[in-house]
Amino acid sequence: MELTFLGTSAGRPLPGRNVSSTALRLPPACGAYWLFDCGEGTQQQIMRTPVKLSKLERIFITHLHGDHTFGLPGLLSSRAFAGGTSPVWVYGPPGIRKWIEMTLEITETRLEYELHLVEIEREGTVYEDGHVRISAAELVHRTVCYGYRIEEKASFGKLDVSKLEAYGVPSGPLAGRLKSGEDVTLPDGRIIRSADVVGPPSAGRVITILSDTSPCDNAVMLAKHADVLVHEATFEAGLESKALEYGHCTTVQAAETARKAGAKRLLLTHFSTRYRDERLQLLAEEAKAVFPAAFAAYDLLEVHIPKTK
Amino acid sequence: MELTFLGTSAGRPLPGRNVSSTALRLPPACGAYWLFDCGEGTQQQIMRTPVKLSKLERIFITHLHGDHTFGLPGLLSSRAFAGGTSPVWVYGPPGIRKWIEMTLEITETRLEYELHLVEIEREGTVYEDGHVRISAAELVHRTVCYGYRIEEKASFGKLDVSKLEAYGVPSGPLAGRLKSGEDVTLPDGRIIRSADVVGPPSAGRVITILSDTSPCDNAVMLAKHADVLVHEATFEAGLESKALEYGHCTTVQAAETARKAGAKRLLLTHFSTRYRDERLQLLAEEAKAVFPAAFAAYDLLEVHIPKTK
Repeated sequence: MELTFLGTSAGRPLPGRNVSSTALRLPPACGAYWLFDCGEGTQQQIMRTPVKLSKLERIFITHLHGDHTFGLPGLLSSRAFAGGTSPVWVYGPPGIRKWIEMTLEITETRLEYELHLVEIEREGTVYEDGHVRISAAELVHRTVCYGYRIEEKASFGKLDVSKLEAYGVPSGPLAGRLKSGEDVTLPDGRIIRSADVVGPPSAGRVITILSDTSPCDNAVMLAKHADVLVHEATFEAGLESKALEYGHCTTVQAAETARKAGAKRLLLTHFSTRYRDERLQLLAEEAKAVFPAAFAAYDLLEVHIPKTK
Repeated sequence: MELTFLGTSAGRPLPGRNVSSTALRLPPACGAYWLFDCGEGTQQQIMRTPVKLSKLERIFITHLHGDHTFGLPGLLSSRAFAGGTSPVWVYGPPGIRKWIEMTLEITETRLEYELHLVEIEREGTVYEDGHVRISAAELVHRTVCYGYRIEEKASFGKLDVSKLEAYGVPSGPLAGRLKSGEDVTLPDGRIIRSADVVGPPSAGRVITILSDTSPCDNAVMLAKHADVLVHEATFEAGLESKALEYGHCTTVQAAETARKAGAKRLLLTHFSTRYRDERLQLLAEEAKAVFPAAFAAYDLLEVHIPKTK
């Protein structure tokens, strides 16, 4: 799994720093991309990365403010132009459906694929399949804003082919049942225990992508033991009252959330346009003082998330 | 006056070629910028040019298709963020008001300046002041689409200061009346003729900005004797039936419109994404065969439009 930061600026773009969007490449078994927020220019940023618009499957919008949404109509439209034919699901707070439907209608935008607009009405699981579950909980901002927690499901251990051969287990359905944790009886009556031929399962990865928020319990809950926490850090340490006024966090507040949650890594984003690029490392230092594994994200940064042993 | 091409791609962006938008710098007496269309990413393109968002005064939308409009909400929002406080007028076909109003409402975008949304209901003058007049006429596309003709008003000739001194005309109101073409009587009874102290007036410049269209009489009418005609050339010569099907023009059709109109210069834009950059010069050559003063525009090209003598 891999995160690609497509925009790390708050409110409006700067040269070299676009408004909010983050892409997640799912494991090869899924072969799809998910997108979190879609500020204006997200499709142009995607052209500079390995992210494939045609393989974009689900888009999760945290809240409806323009710096997180204005790129959505153009991205959906260009995906059709670029030959995307598989369905797309867009999830977001109430209002997203009306805005997208009316925008596509007034601009006479016709998509050559199914578009499902899903308004999130309550906290909890938003989507789940055999590989992954994503859940949402409300953050504290000036409008309804959801944070997302992506949990990869634990995967079966690796089948030890040499042991299978030693036991005389033929490849095929029996081996598959062993890999899935089941003990099986061979045609000759012998019982083979899964634990004897399959390595330990790997725990699934957890990725938490929060958006605009003041510090809150739900942020900590969503980030619990996350491998990676993506958290806004709109303001520098010391500007806590300003951050609160606008429903945002400072660097140190983001770091405190990561520490309380026991997250493994913290990636800061959504920096106020008052901070030029050369300042961002200093902002990361403020967070590191509280949570050492803190980093300042930047546009087009790709972060590989290794499998948990 | 100066045109800046902010996007020259049709339908969707390519790397280095954004969707439609063209900025016009008005003469210093006006000190303002006008924008024609506003595809997604226009505000990001503007950051790469001398165009000032805070001095953007009027935006003329040709039609509502997304590649000409999806940058509008973000640009309006960022103009407020960037400290723009003076009013902005947006002109466009019916539907533009509902879309912008609803988009700003659902995304809770608050502008710190007056926004006037003007739906163009009929052809003719759209805006006029002491310096300039802009008129619209309907083109032939798959949806209501306006072309625009900007006519600078003729300006007074240059006052010859040495002649004023020779005649003993004091600087001040009398000199102003002479400059505006009036003959004046000096306190000593002498009559000074304006034509004796003022150079010839300069004719105003004419700039025609057409958008998506099949060949039509209104295109020729709007481009009549234009100093610069900005015309779409979505397809190469020979693809006339495909162009007609989608409400577009080929290079040669654009050149024929320029020729019939007696325009001075033709700038081709809105190229299909099927054409890579290295092909665009060949497209321009096709147009030059019919209208020699034809050029292929490209992103961030600035075109100075000299004053007519």
